[in-house]
Amino acid sequence: MVAMRYDLIIHNGIIVTVNPDFEIFRSGFVAVKGGRVERVGHHGIEERLPDADVVIDAKEGIVLPGLVNTHTHLPMTLFRGLADDLSLMDWLNNHIFPAEAKHVNPDSVHTGTLLGCAEMLLGGTTTCCDGYFYESKVAEAVEQTGMRAVLAQGVIDFPAPGVPDPAENVNYAAAYTESWMNRNPKIRPSLFCHSPYTCAADTLKRAKAAATQKGVLFQIHVAETRTERDQILKEHGLSPVQYLDRIGVLDANTLLVHAVWVDAADIVTIADRGAKISHTPGSNMKLAVGVAPVPEFLKAGICTGIGTDGSASNNNLDLFQEMNLTAKIHKVHTLDPTVIDARSALEMATINGARAIGLDADIGSIETGKWADMIVVNTRQPHLTPLYNPASHLVYCASGADVRDVIVSGQVVVRDRNLLTLDLEDVLDRATAIARKIGKT
Amino acid sequence: MVAMRYDLIIHNGIIVTVNPDFEIFRSGFVAVKGGRVERVGHHGIEERLPDADVVIDAKEGIVLPGLVNTHTHLPMTLFRGLADDLSLMDWLNNHIFPAEAKHVNPDSVHTGTLLGCAEMLLGGTTTCCDGYFYESKVAEAVEQTGMRAVLAQGVIDFPAPGVPDPAENVNYAAAYTESWMNRNPKIRPSLFCHSPYTCAADTLKRAKAAATQKGVLFQIHVAETRTERDQILKEHGLSPVQYLDRIGVLDANTLLVHAVWVDAADIVTIADRGAKISHTPGSNMKLAVGVAPVPEFLKAGICTGIGTDGSASNNNLDLFQEMNLTAKIHKVHTLDPTVIDARSALEMATINGARAIGLDADIGSIETGKWADMIVVNTRQPHLTPLYNPASHLVYCASGADVRDVIVSGQVVVRDRNLLTLDLEDVLDRATAIARKIGKT
Repeated sequence: MVAMRYDLIIHNGIIVTVNPDFEIFRSGFVAVKGGRVERVGHHGIEERLPDADVVIDAKEGIVLPGLVNTHTHLPMTLFRGLADDLSLMDWLNNHIFPAEAKHVNPDSVHTGTLLGCAEMLLGGTTTCCDGYFYESKVAEAVEQTGMRAVLAQGVIDFPAPGVPDPAENVNYAAAYTESWMNRNPKIRPSLFCHSPYTCAADTLKRAKAAATQKGVLFQIHVAETRTERDQILKEHGLSPVQYLDRIGVLDANTLLVHAVWVDAADIVTIADRGAKISHTPGSNMKLAVGVAPVPEFLKAGICTGIGTDGSASNNNLDLFQEMNLTAKIHKVHTLDPTVIDARSALEMATINGARAIGLDADIGSIETGKWADMIVVNTRQPHLTPLYNPASHLVYCASGADVRDVIVSGQVVVRDRNLLTLDLEDVLDRATAIARKIGKT
Repeated sequence: MVAMRYDLIIHNGIIVTVNPDFEIFRSGFVAVKGGRVERVGHHGIEERLPDADVVIDAKEGIVLPGLVNTHTHLPMTLFRGLADDLSLMDWLNNHIFPAEAKHVNPDSVHTGTLLGCAEMLLGGTTTCCDGYFYESKVAEAVEQTGMRAVLAQGVIDFPAPGVPDPAENVNYAAAYTESWMNRNPKIRPSLFCHSPYTCAADTLKRAKAAATQKGVLFQIHVAETRTERDQILKEHGLSPVQYLDRIGVLDANTLLVHAVWVDAADIVTIADRGAKISHTPGSNMKLAVGVAPVPEFLKAGICTGIGTDGSASNNNLDLFQEMNLTAKIHKVHTLDPTVIDARSALEMATINGARAIGLDADIGSIETGKWADMIVVNTRQPHLTPLYNPASHLVYCASGADVRDVIVSGQVVVRDRNLLTLDLEDVLDRATAIARKIGKT
């Protein structure tokens, strides 16, 4: 019998699998072949390793599934810190929308996406779920980075970057989706309707029909602010969630982003339809919109992932920070320190995030047969010493800067904090040059 | 005329002075002599620099005052992540107090302190305000690290580590204070009464009298939980703050830690007495005790600094993260995105923290005559690109891991992320060895 030769082996670290039993191998190894996990388990450091083309010694490291960021607007990375400490509508109408009208073009979308992906990969996020305009340019940029992504063309009933005629918005998004179907195994197209207050019922229905016809994820910001809730209630006599349900766009392929102003009846409806939620604590806190009832979502069995939102509102793409916020904000909001423990927060940022965007059969945990999307966190640092409980450290102590190595589909994209897929200095220079123009307006 | 020769010059960075006008020099320099800032201002990169023994090129960096952490329990760094997701009393009584009884000794206090200081210095905190037991051992360890600190011996009416007889607690603390008066210009002694529910009125009064007699800071945890507020109300017929005021321990040399369960009358009293507050958002969130009314403190003119609390409850000592939480939690709690903007959060973590612990004449901003306590944040990174507003990036994007260089009293203690004052590997090994014993109990 000829011994198996693997493409990649990671060994000698603590493997936090995030499998259904949340198994942790204190001295573990993962063997990868053809981009997928072939074996994972305990491996004594004295045992002989199988042969492999690439061997990563995860000594004093925690190996965990790559994080899944369920809500981004990648090109907006160029607007990071442009305007802060403002109400959502002031921020949108007087700062972000004007900057977008003037500066969003295929080139800036490409550069902003590279910048955002560089930040995410270096911070341990291997998959993101995005929505913006010129999304084909986003997809081309994401392809360069080696990252996995669900990428949605935005739909809004106003003239938008690249879609001057709103009457064409759904057709445009459907054509985008068609062109990216099965083009790259790491990229899945999607449609993103901006919100129930910026898209008419007909637009929402047509976009959902297009998504259903292609079998892709339908995304929408919903119930972000009290103002939105009140407006939809006034116009339609229903809460935003009930309104979306009435027009028939809630099902298991729908991702509801934010979901802050939802009530008990809304939660029952979301659970009944099997719709998923992207929770964005950092953005919700900074924009002061409110605290989503995430403990209630979990009690109702609603699949809930975590998202950073765009860098213009957060202002970074560090999913470790969002895990930390997720574990903390609901404790203080409910005055119950037992809600959303470290394991739950870590599951939301990995397997549940994957499930929320329809990828849980393929990613979100380190299990045989799944794509080998994994990261190594360097625990040999003062702020991660001592180490009693790996999940606790990942949620309560670590940040994206602690990520040493990043692997997507078995490909090493970050090694010893060096991003291997991009010329990072060039990306930083290009982003800075564009920002110089943005800052002048 | 002979040109001045400086000990240290930092140039070519963005200098965020945090002086009263919040001046920012986009291309600035700071010149240091005798441990103090001699000059600070604009300096074109083409101009000739004055001579200096050490020159730090802060290219693509932000230079700001070293951060001031107004609440730590340094030796508890060894308990980081030992127990999480529990109520405060369960956590204290069933995990922390038993671990302390068994494992707190002069050696563990020394090692835990070195570990905590290493983390803080590498994360840009140059001053901390601590309270624990065996505080002379804490002070000896802090001296080794080159950090600045206000270090308080704890006072509690139970047998405590190193103070088996509670009847001696105030005398012990007073003797500690005496022994560290004027011994090291970077270390100031202090007394820390644990709380109004663990110290009798007589203990509180005697400890405050000892602090007043020595002219040092008196610290106390107060109004952390609703349970404490209810208990003090029941026992004394007064809120915790009013109770402390009645027994006469509130004045401008008193630092109130937490101050979550305070009402409008308490805020008036704190402001009238000139007492200071250490706000601990991360700890308050994780332990689910509540949100302190910080915007009300600021409106009332109460000096408020930021603290991490001990690593056992937070679970790290990253003051950048606490600034971020401070700027966000009050926005979402009040549903007002304009409260505590980036500048205010940065001032709380620097000049106001310094004022809260009585050191604002000497540190907290980069101004001529103050000790040269400064840090350089490396902005040449994806998550800090582009850069429109330095204060926004420091509060909303950065973490301790972005700190490149750290200077205390003109001494370079961290250079290019290398800690120069300690054998870090040895500290990590010793901490890990002690934790192995703690983890077994």
